Amino acid sequence: MANGAPPATLVIGVLGGMGPQATADFLAKLTAATPAECEQDHLRVHIDSNPKVPDRSTALTRGGESPGPVLAAMAAGLERAGADFLVMPCNTAHAYEAEIRAAVGVPFVSMIDETCAACELTFPDAQRFGLLATSGCVEARLYQSAFARAGRATIVLAPADQERLTALLYRIKLGDRSHTVHDAMRAFGETLIDAGADAVVAACSEVPLVLGDGELSRPLLDATLQLARRCVRYAYGCEPLPAVCLSAT
Amino acid sequence: MANGAPPATLVIGVLGGMGPQATADFLAKLTAATPAECEQDHLRVHIDSNPKVPDRSTALTRGGESPGPVLAAMAAGLERAGADFLVMPCNTAHAYEAEIRAAVGVPFVSMIDETCAACELTFPDAQRFGLLATSGCVEARLYQSAFARAGRATIVLAPADQERLTALLYRIKLGDRSHTVHDAMRAFGETLIDAGADAVVAACSEVPLVLGDGELSRPLLDATLQLARRCVRYAYGCEPLPAVCLSAT
Repeated sequence: MANGAPPATLVIGVLGGMGPQATADFLAKLTAATPAECEQDHLRVHIDSNPKVPDRSTALTRGGESPGPVLAAMAAGLERAGADFLVMPCNTAHAYEAEIRAAVGVPFVSMIDETCAACELTFPDAQRFGLLATSGCVEARLYQSAFARAGRATIVLAPADQERLTALLYRIKLGDRSHTVHDAMRAFGETLIDAGADAVVAACSEVPLVLGDGELSRPLLDATLQLARRCVRYAYGCEPLPAVCLSAT
Repeated sequence: MANGAPPATLVIGVLGGMGPQATADFLAKLTAATPAECEQDHLRVHIDSNPKVPDRSTALTRGGESPGPVLAAMAAGLERAGADFLVMPCNTAHAYEAEIRAAVGVPFVSMIDETCAACELTFPDAQRFGLLATSGCVEARLYQSAFARAGRATIVLAPADQERLTALLYRIKLGDRSHTVHDAMRAFGETLIDAGADAVVAACSEVPLVLGDGELSRPLLDATLQLARRCVRYAYGCEPLPAVCLSAT
Protein backbone atom coordinates (compact mmCIF):
# COMPACT_ATOMS: atom_id res chain seq x y z
CA MET A 1 0.00 0.00 0.00
CA ALA A 2 2.92 2.34 0.74
CA ASN A 3 3.42 3.19 -2.92
CA GLY A 4 -0.19 3.00 -4.08
CA ALA A 5 -3.12 5.32 -3.49
CA PRO A 6 -4.44 5.07 0.04
CA PRO A 7 -7.88 3.44 0.28
CA ALA A 8 -10.84 5.79 0.11
CA THR A 9 -12.09 6.16 3.65
CA LEU A 10 -14.62 8.40 5.30
CA VAL A 11 -13.45 11.31 7.43
CA ILE A 12 -14.47 11.16 11.09
CA GLY A 13 -15.47 14.24 13.08
CA VAL A 14 -14.94 14.01 16.82
CA LEU A 15 -16.73 16.18 19.36
CA GLY A 16 -14.02 15.85 21.96
CA GLY A 17 -12.37 17.30 25.02
CA MET A 18 -14.88 15.84 27.46
CA GLY A 19 -12.37 15.21 28.94
CA PRO A 20 -9.28 15.76 26.82
CA GLN A 21 -7.47 12.64 28.08
CA ALA A 22 -10.49 10.58 27.07
CA THR A 23 -10.26 12.08 23.58
CA ALA A 24 -6.56 11.18 23.37
CA ASP A 25 -7.52 7.67 24.52
CA PHE A 26 -10.15 7.48 21.78
CA LEU A 27 -7.68 8.56 19.10
CA ALA A 28 -5.14 6.01 20.32
CA LYS A 29 -7.77 3.24 20.30
CA LEU A 30 -9.05 4.27 16.88
CA THR A 31 -5.52 4.10 15.51
CA ALA A 32 -4.81 0.75 17.15
CA ALA A 33 -8.10 -0.62 15.75
CA THR A 34 -7.27 0.39 12.16
CA PRO A 35 -5.88 -2.35 9.90
CA ALA A 36 -3.06 -0.24 8.47
CA GLU A 37 -0.13 -1.45 6.40
CA CYS A 38 1.33 2.04 6.25
CA GLU A 39 0.63 5.34 7.94
CA GLN A 40 -1.47 6.55 4.99
CA ASP A 41 -3.96 3.70 5.57
CA HIS A 42 -4.96 5.33 8.85
CA LEU A 43 -8.11 7.40 9.08
CA ARG A 44 -8.36 11.14 8.80
CA VAL A 45 -10.03 12.57 11.86
CA HIS A 46 -11.07 16.14 12.59
CA ILE A 47 -11.17 16.64 16.33
CA ASP A 48 -12.61 19.60 18.16
CA SER A 49 -11.19 18.92 21.61
CA ASN A 50 -13.18 21.45 23.58
CA PRO A 51 -12.96 21.04 27.36
CA LYS A 52 -14.77 24.38 27.70
CA VAL A 53 -18.11 22.65 27.01
CA PRO A 54 -20.30 23.25 30.09
CA ASP A 55 -20.30 20.33 32.49
CA ARG A 56 -22.81 17.72 31.34
CA SER A 57 -23.46 16.04 34.65
CA THR A 58 -24.05 19.35 36.42
CA ALA A 59 -26.49 20.43 33.72
CA LEU A 60 -28.40 17.15 33.95
CA THR A 61 -28.52 16.79 37.72
CA ARG A 62 -28.49 20.37 38.97
CA GLY A 63 -29.83 22.48 36.12
CA GLY A 64 -26.49 24.06 35.16
CA GLU A 65 -25.85 25.73 31.81
CA SER A 66 -26.84 23.45 28.94
CA PRO A 67 -23.95 22.21 26.81
CA GLY A 68 -26.39 21.64 23.92
CA PRO A 69 -25.76 24.88 21.97
CA VAL A 70 -21.95 24.54 22.19
CA LEU A 71 -22.11 20.90 21.11
CA ALA A 72 -24.35 21.82 18.17
CA ALA A 73 -21.88 24.54 17.09
CA MET A 74 -18.97 22.12 17.38
CA ALA A 75 -20.81 19.56 15.27
CA ALA A 76 -21.53 22.16 12.57
CA GLY A 77 -17.86 23.18 12.56
CA LEU A 78 -16.72 19.59 12.14
CA GLU A 79 -19.14 19.11 9.26
CA ARG A 80 -17.78 22.28 7.62
CA ALA A 81 -14.23 20.98 8.12
CA GLY A 82 -15.14 17.94 6.04
CA ALA A 83 -16.30 15.24 8.43
CA ASP A 84 -18.46 12.53 6.80
CA PHE A 85 -19.87 11.38 10.13
CA LEU A 86 -19.61 12.48 13.74
CA VAL A 87 -18.89 10.75 17.02
CA MET A 88 -18.49 11.95 20.59
CA PRO A 89 -16.33 9.96 23.03
CA CYS A 90 -18.25 11.26 26.04
CA ASN A 91 -21.20 9.14 27.10
CA THR A 92 -22.96 11.71 29.27
CA ALA A 93 -22.96 14.34 26.51
CA HIS A 94 -25.22 12.01 24.50
CA ALA A 95 -28.09 13.47 26.50
CA TYR A 96 -27.73 16.36 24.01
CA GLU A 97 -27.59 14.10 20.97
CA ALA A 98 -30.82 15.53 19.51
CA GLU A 99 -29.35 19.05 19.40
CA ILE A 100 -26.22 17.72 17.71
CA ARG A 101 -28.20 15.79 15.10
CA ALA A 102 -30.38 18.80 14.40
CA ALA A 103 -27.32 20.95 13.65
CA VAL A 104 -25.80 18.80 10.90
CA GLY A 105 -26.60 16.93 7.73
CA VAL A 106 -24.13 14.11 8.32
CA PRO A 107 -24.83 11.04 10.48
CA PHE A 108 -24.05 11.09 14.18
CA VAL A 109 -22.90 7.66 15.40
CA SER A 110 -24.10 7.17 18.95
CA MET A 111 -21.60 5.76 21.43
CA ILE A 112 -24.53 4.55 23.53
CA ASP A 113 -26.26 2.67 20.69
CA GLU A 114 -23.00 1.16 19.43
CA THR A 115 -21.97 0.06 22.90
CA CYS A 116 -25.35 -1.55 23.60
CA ALA A 117 -25.17 -3.35 20.25
CA ALA A 118 -21.67 -4.56 21.12
CA CYS A 119 -22.87 -5.79 24.51
CA GLU A 120 -25.66 -7.79 22.88
CA LEU A 121 -23.22 -9.35 20.42
CA THR A 122 -20.39 -9.97 22.86
CA PHE A 123 -22.49 -11.18 25.78
CA PRO A 124 -25.60 -12.77 24.24
CA ASP A 125 -26.44 -14.54 27.50
CA ALA A 126 -25.99 -11.56 29.77
CA GLN A 127 -29.24 -10.18 31.12
CA ARG A 128 -28.05 -7.44 33.45
CA PHE A 129 -25.41 -4.84 32.64
CA GLY A 130 -23.84 -2.77 35.39
CA LEU A 131 -23.14 0.86 34.59
CA LEU A 132 -20.00 2.73 35.62
CA ALA A 133 -21.25 6.15 34.55
CA THR A 134 -21.63 9.72 35.77
CA SER A 135 -24.71 10.72 37.75
CA GLY A 136 -25.81 12.79 34.76
CA CYS A 137 -25.61 9.80 32.44
CA VAL A 138 -27.56 7.68 34.93
CA GLU A 139 -30.23 10.32 35.57
CA ALA A 140 -30.68 10.91 31.83
CA ARG A 141 -31.22 7.13 31.56
CA LEU A 142 -29.12 6.98 28.37
CA TYR A 143 -27.94 3.41 28.79
CA GLN A 144 -31.03 2.23 30.68
CA SER A 145 -33.25 3.25 27.76
CA ALA A 146 -30.96 1.74 25.12
CA PHE A 147 -30.60 -1.57 26.97
CA ALA A 148 -34.35 -1.66 27.67
CA ARG A 149 -35.01 -1.40 23.91
CA ALA A 150 -32.85 -4.51 23.54
CA GLY A 151 -34.74 -6.31 26.31
CA ARG A 152 -31.85 -6.14 28.77
CA ALA A 153 -31.74 -4.84 32.31
CA THR A 154 -29.26 -2.41 33.81
CA ILE A 155 -27.89 -2.07 37.31
CA VAL A 156 -26.72 1.22 38.74
CA LEU A 157 -25.08 2.06 42.06
CA ALA A 158 -27.05 3.17 45.09
CA PRO A 159 -27.31 6.99 45.25
CA ALA A 160 -24.49 7.54 47.76
CA ASP A 161 -22.10 5.28 45.83
CA GLN A 162 -23.20 6.89 42.56
CA GLU A 163 -22.22 10.30 43.94
CA ARG A 164 -18.87 8.94 45.05
CA LEU A 165 -18.30 7.38 41.63
CA THR A 166 -19.03 10.71 39.94
CA ALA A 167 -16.54 12.45 42.23
CA LEU A 168 -13.99 9.76 41.33
CA LEU A 169 -14.56 10.33 37.61
CA TYR A 170 -13.87 14.04 38.14
CA ARG A 171 -10.59 13.19 39.85
CA ILE A 172 -9.59 11.22 36.75
CA LYS A 173 -10.56 14.20 34.60
CA LEU A 174 -7.98 16.20 36.57
CA GLY A 175 -5.27 13.66 35.83
CA ASP A 176 -5.41 11.41 38.88
CA ARG A 177 -4.72 7.85 37.73
CA SER A 178 -3.30 6.67 41.03
CA HIS A 179 -3.65 3.22 42.52
CA THR A 180 -6.18 4.69 44.94
CA VAL A 181 -8.41 5.78 42.06
CA HIS A 182 -7.90 2.47 40.27
CA ASP A 183 -8.79 0.46 43.37
CA ALA A 184 -11.86 2.57 44.07
CA MET A 185 -13.05 2.14 40.48
CA ARG A 186 -12.57 -1.59 40.70
CA ALA A 187 -14.54 -1.65 43.95
CA PHE A 188 -17.46 0.14 42.27
CA GLY A 189 -17.35 -2.44 39.48
CA GLU A 190 -17.45 -5.28 41.99
CA THR A 191 -20.37 -3.62 43.79
CA LEU A 192 -22.33 -3.75 40.50
CA ILE A 193 -21.36 -7.40 40.05
CA ASP A 194 -22.39 -8.21 43.63
CA ALA A 195 -25.74 -6.60 42.83
CA GLY A 196 -26.22 -9.03 39.94
CA ALA A 197 -24.43 -7.56 36.90
CA ASP A 198 -23.37 -10.20 34.37
CA ALA A 199 -21.01 -7.68 32.78
CA VAL A 200 -20.03 -4.09 33.48
CA VAL A 201 -20.01 -1.23 30.99
CA ALA A 202 -17.29 1.43 31.25
CA ALA A 203 -20.01 3.94 30.38
CA CYS A 204 -17.93 7.03 31.08
CA SER A 205 -14.85 7.64 28.95
CA GLU A 206 -12.75 8.32 32.04
CA VAL A 207 -13.27 4.76 33.33
CA PRO A 208 -10.94 3.01 30.86
CA LEU A 209 -8.19 5.49 31.74
CA VAL A 210 -7.82 3.66 35.05
CA LEU A 211 -9.53 0.26 34.71
CA GLY A 212 -9.20 -2.38 32.00
CA ASP A 213 -11.03 -5.54 31.03
CA GLY A 214 -9.78 -8.49 33.05
CA GLU A 215 -9.52 -6.51 36.27
CA LEU A 216 -13.05 -7.31 37.45
CA SER A 217 -14.55 -10.69 38.30
CA ARG A 218 -16.88 -10.25 35.31
CA PRO A 219 -16.14 -8.70 31.88
CA LEU A 220 -15.76 -4.95 31.52
CA LEU A 221 -16.87 -3.53 28.18
CA ASP A 222 -15.12 -0.30 27.19
CA ALA A 223 -17.52 2.07 25.38
CA THR A 224 -14.59 4.11 23.99
CA LEU A 225 -13.02 1.03 22.45
CA GLN A 226 -16.35 -0.11 21.00
CA LEU A 227 -16.92 3.29 19.43
CA ALA A 228 -13.39 3.29 17.99
CA ARG A 229 -13.87 -0.17 16.45
CA ARG A 230 -17.20 0.82 14.94
CA CYS A 231 -15.70 4.01 13.52
CA VAL A 232 -13.14 1.92 11.63
CA ARG A 233 -15.87 -0.26 10.12
CA TYR A 234 -17.97 2.74 9.10
CA ALA A 235 -15.01 4.72 7.75
CA TYR A 236 -13.77 1.80 5.67
CA GLY A 237 -17.28 1.19 4.34
CA CYS A 238 -17.50 -2.29 5.87
CA GLU A 239 -21.08 -1.44 6.72
CA PRO A 240 -23.45 1.45 6.05
CA LEU A 241 -23.64 4.33 8.46
CA PRO A 242 -26.74 4.52 10.64
CA ALA A 243 -29.44 6.67 9.09
CA VAL A 244 -29.55 10.29 10.12
CA CYS A 245 -31.82 10.60 13.22
CA LEU A 246 -31.89 6.90 14.05
CA SER A 247 -31.92 7.26 17.79
CA ALA A 248 -35.25 7.40 19.57
CA THR A 249 -33.92 8.64 22.91
CA MET B 1 -12.72 27.78 39.00
CA ALA B 2 -15.46 25.15 38.59
CA ASN B 3 -18.23 27.65 39.09
CA GLY B 4 -16.60 30.71 37.55
CA ALA B 5 -15.89 31.61 33.94
CA PRO B 6 -13.03 29.57 32.52
CA PRO B 7 -9.86 31.58 31.90
CA ALA B 8 -9.52 33.11 28.43
CA THR B 9 -7.04 30.94 26.58
CA LEU B 10 -5.91 30.76 22.99
CA VAL B 11 -7.16 27.97 20.76
CA ILE B 12 -4.47 25.64 19.41
CA GLY B 13 -4.57 24.19 15.91
CA VAL B 14 -2.73 20.91 15.44
CA LEU B 15 -1.54 19.59 12.09
CA GLY B 16 -1.59 15.97 13.17
CA GLY B 17 -1.78 12.37 12.13
CA MET B 18 1.93 12.04 11.35
CA GLY B 19 1.55 9.51 12.84
CA PRO B 20 -1.82 9.35 14.60
CA GLN B 21 -0.43 7.72 17.77
CA ALA B 22 2.06 10.57 18.05
CA THR B 23 -0.83 13.03 17.82
CA ALA B 24 -2.68 11.18 20.59
CA ASP B 25 0.55 11.31 22.62
CA PHE B 26 0.79 15.06 22.03
CA LEU B 27 -2.81 15.64 23.16
CA ALA B 28 -2.21 13.53 26.28
CA LYS B 29 0.98 15.46 27.09
CA LEU B 30 -0.68 18.82 26.43
CA THR B 31 -3.48 17.88 28.81
CA ALA B 32 -1.09 16.63 31.48
CA ALA B 33 0.96 19.85 31.17
CA THR B 34 -2.07 22.12 31.68
CA PRO B 35 -2.55 23.50 35.20
CA ALA B 36 -6.27 22.74 35.38
CA GLU B 37 -8.48 22.86 38.44
CA CYS B 38 -11.46 21.67 36.48
CA GLU B 39 -12.05 20.25 33.01
CA GLN B 40 -13.05 23.65 31.66
CA ASP B 41 -9.56 25.04 32.46
CA HIS B 42 -8.12 22.75 29.78
CA LEU B 43 -7.27 24.11 26.37
CA ARG B 44 -9.43 23.96 23.29
CA VAL B 45 -7.58 22.25 20.47
CA HIS B 46 -8.62 21.78 16.87
CA ILE B 47 -6.83 18.75 15.48
CA ASP B 48 -6.67 17.71 11.86
CA SER B 49 -5.28 14.22 12.32
CA ASN B 50 -4.47 13.42 8.72
CA PRO B 51 -2.32 10.32 8.23
CA LYS B 52 -2.98 10.63 4.48
CA VAL B 53 -0.29 13.34 4.24
CA PRO B 54 2.36 12.06 1.80
CA ASP B 55 5.35 10.53 3.54
CA ARG B 56 7.77 13.27 4.57
CA SER B 57 10.93 11.24 4.77
CA THR B 58 10.33 9.67 1.34
CA ALA B 59 9.75 13.11 -0.18
CA LEU B 60 12.92 14.48 1.39
CA THR B 61 15.24 11.57 0.66
CA ARG B 62 13.84 10.06 -2.52
CA GLY B 63 11.89 12.83 -4.20
CA GLY B 64 8.43 11.45 -3.44
CA GLU B 65 5.26 13.53 -3.62
CA SER B 66 5.64 16.73 -1.59
CA PRO B 67 3.43 16.95 1.49
CA GLY B 68 3.68 20.75 1.34
CA PRO B 69 0.37 21.51 -0.42
CA VAL B 70 -1.65 19.17 1.84
CA LEU B 71 -0.03 20.64 4.96
CA ALA B 72 -0.78 24.18 3.74
CA ALA B 73 -4.43 23.24 3.16
CA MET B 74 -4.66 21.65 6.61
CA ALA B 75 -3.20 24.79 8.18
CA ALA B 76 -5.72 27.01 6.39
CA GLY B 77 -8.55 24.75 7.54
CA LEU B 78 -7.40 24.93 11.15
CA GLU B 79 -7.21 28.71 10.97
CA ARG B 80 -10.76 28.80 9.55
CA ALA B 81 -11.90 26.53 12.39
CA GLY B 82 -10.71 29.14 14.86
CA ALA B 83 -7.14 28.27 15.81
CA ASP B 84 -5.14 31.20 17.21
CA PHE B 85 -1.82 29.50 16.54
CA LEU B 86 -0.67 26.30 14.90
CA VAL B 87 1.67 23.49 15.87
CA MET B 88 2.66 20.21 14.23
CA PRO B 89 3.80 17.29 16.39
CA CYS B 90 5.85 15.79 13.55
CA ASN B 91 9.46 16.94 13.41
CA THR B 92 10.22 15.85 9.84
CA ALA B 93 7.22 17.72 8.43
CA HIS B 94 8.85 20.95 9.58
CA ALA B 95 10.84 20.80 6.35
CA TYR B 96 7.61 22.20 4.85
CA GLU B 97 7.18 24.88 7.49
CA ALA B 98 7.54 27.71 4.96
CA GLU B 99 4.56 26.46 2.97
CA ILE B 100 2.49 26.20 6.14
CA ARG B 101 3.43 29.69 7.29
CA ALA B 102 2.63 31.11 3.85
CA ALA B 103 -0.89 29.64 3.97
CA VAL B 104 -2.07 31.27 7.20
CA GLY B 105 -2.20 34.55 9.05
CA VAL B 106 -1.75 33.05 12.52
CA PRO B 107 1.61 32.13 14.06
CA PHE B 108 3.09 28.71 13.54
CA VAL B 109 5.03 27.55 16.59
CA SER B 110 7.98 25.45 15.45
CA MET B 111 8.59 22.21 17.31
CA ILE B 112 12.22 22.38 16.18
CA ASP B 113 12.84 25.92 17.48
CA GLU B 114 11.03 25.26 20.76
CA THR B 115 12.92 22.03 21.35
CA CYS B 116 16.28 23.65 20.64
CA ALA B 117 15.41 26.48 23.03
CA ALA B 118 14.42 23.92 25.67
CA CYS B 119 17.71 22.06 25.15
CA GLU B 120 19.68 25.27 25.67
CA LEU B 121 17.75 26.06 28.85
CA THR B 122 17.71 22.55 30.27
CA PHE B 123 21.27 21.58 29.38
CA PRO B 124 23.27 24.84 29.37
CA ASP B 125 26.58 22.95 29.54
CA ALA B 126 25.80 20.45 26.80
CA GLN B 127 27.71 21.05 23.60
CA ARG B 128 26.65 18.10 21.46
CA PHE B 129 23.11 16.87 21.00
CA GLY B 130 22.44 13.46 19.51
CA LEU B 131 19.48 13.18 17.15
CA LEU B 132 17.04 10.29 17.08
CA ALA B 133 15.24 11.39 13.92
CA THR B 134 14.07 10.12 10.54
CA SER B 135 16.45 10.19 7.59
CA GLY B 136 14.31 12.94 6.06
CA CYS B 137 14.65 15.10 9.16
CA VAL B 138 18.42 14.52 9.19
CA GLU B 139 18.87 15.19 5.47
CA ALA B 140 16.79 18.38 5.69
CA ARG B 141 19.16 19.43 8.51
CA LEU B 142 16.24 20.79 10.55
CA TYR B 143 17.81 20.27 13.96
CA GLN B 144 21.39 20.70 12.77
CA SER B 145 20.57 24.21 11.48
CA ALA B 146 18.62 25.21 14.58
CA PHE B 147 21.32 23.97 16.97
CA ALA B 148 24.05 25.60 14.85
CA ARG B 149 22.25 28.96 15.21
CA ALA B 150 22.55 28.44 18.99
CA GLY B 151 26.23 27.54 18.72
CA ARG B 152 25.71 23.88 19.54
CA ALA B 153 26.80 20.80 17.67
CA THR B 154 24.69 17.82 16.67
CA ILE B 155 25.55 14.16 16.27
CA VAL B 156 23.72 11.87 13.89
CA LEU B 157 24.02 8.15 13.28
CA ALA B 158 26.22 6.69 10.57
CA PRO B 159 24.24 6.18 7.32
CA ALA B 160 23.58 2.46 7.77
CA ASP B 161 22.37 2.94 11.36
CA GLN B 162 20.34 5.97 10.30
CA GLU B 163 18.52 3.84 7.73
CA ARG B 164 17.85 1.19 10.36
CA LEU B 165 16.54 3.83 12.78
CA THR B 166 14.16 5.14 10.13
CA ALA B 167 12.87 1.62 9.50
CA LEU B 168 12.38 1.24 13.25
CA LEU B 169 10.39 4.48 13.41
CA TYR B 170 8.11 3.15 10.67
CA ARG B 171 7.53 -0.01 12.71
CA ILE B 172 6.39 2.18 15.59
CA LYS B 173 4.08 4.06 13.21
CA LEU B 174 2.40 0.71 12.51
CA GLY B 175 1.83 0.08 16.19
CA ASP B 176 4.87 -1.97 17.19
CA ARG B 177 5.88 -0.94 20.70
CA SER B 178 7.46 -4.26 21.58
CA HIS B 179 10.48 -4.78 23.80
CA THR B 180 12.49 -5.47 20.65
CA VAL B 181 11.66 -2.02 19.30
CA HIS B 182 12.30 -0.41 22.67
CA ASP B 183 15.69 -2.11 23.03
CA ALA B 184 16.72 -1.19 19.49
CA MET B 185 15.76 2.45 20.09
CA ARG B 186 17.75 2.50 23.31
CA ALA B 187 20.73 1.04 21.48
CA PHE B 188 20.58 3.84 18.88
CA GLY B 189 20.49 6.37 21.71
CA GLU B 190 23.56 4.81 23.31
CA THR B 191 25.34 4.83 19.94
CA LEU B 192 24.85 8.60 19.82
CA ILE B 193 26.11 8.92 23.39
CA ASP B 194 29.16 6.75 22.60
CA ALA B 195 29.83 9.11 19.70
CA GLY B 196 29.96 12.05 22.12
CA ALA B 197 26.39 13.25 22.65
CA ASP B 198 25.89 15.03 25.99
CA ALA B 199 22.14 14.60 25.62
CA VAL B 200 19.84 12.98 23.09
CA VAL B 201 16.83 14.56 21.42
CA ALA B 202 13.77 12.43 20.68
CA ALA B 203 13.51 14.33 17.41
CA CYS B 204 10.83 12.13 15.88
CA SER B 205 7.44 11.99 17.58
CA GLU B 206 7.43 8.20 17.38
CA VAL B 207 10.51 7.94 19.65
CA PRO B 208 8.77 8.83 22.94
CA LEU B 209 6.12 6.20 22.21
CA VAL B 210 8.75 3.57 23.06
CA LEU B 211 11.58 5.31 24.96
CA GLY B 212 11.43 7.66 27.92
CA ASP B 213 13.84 9.94 29.71
CA GLY B 214 15.89 8.00 32.28
CA GLU B 215 16.31 5.00 30.01
CA LEU B 216 19.57 6.19 28.45
CA SER B 217 22.90 6.85 30.15
CA ARG B 218 22.46 10.55 29.29
CA PRO B 219 19.26 12.65 29.30
CA LEU B 220 16.66 12.19 26.58
CA LEU B 221 14.72 15.33 25.66
CA ASP B 222 11.24 14.66 24.25
CA ALA B 223 10.36 17.17 21.50
CA THR B 224 6.65 16.31 21.78
CA LEU B 225 6.63 17.08 25.50
CA GLN B 226 8.54 20.32 24.98
CA LEU B 227 6.08 21.44 22.33
CA ALA B 228 3.15 20.56 24.60
CA ARG B 229 4.60 22.56 27.49
CA ARG B 230 5.26 25.57 25.28
CA CYS B 231 1.73 25.40 23.89
CA VAL B 232 0.34 25.72 27.41
CA ARG B 233 2.47 28.82 28.08
CA TYR B 234 1.45 30.44 24.79
CA ALA B 235 -2.21 29.53 25.12
CA TYR B 236 -2.43 30.90 28.66
CA GLY B 237 -0.64 34.08 27.58
CA CYS B 238 2.35 33.46 29.89
CA GLU B 239 4.51 34.72 27.07
CA PRO B 240 3.90 36.22 23.63
CA LEU B 241 3.66 34.00 20.60
CA PRO B 242 6.63 34.02 18.24
CA ALA B 243 6.23 36.53 15.44
CA VAL B 244 4.74 35.27 12.19
CA CYS B 245 7.62 34.05 9.94
CA LEU B 246 10.25 33.91 12.67
CA SER B 247 12.08 30.88 11.37
CA ALA B 248 14.96 31.41 8.99
CA THR B 249 15.18 27.79 7.84
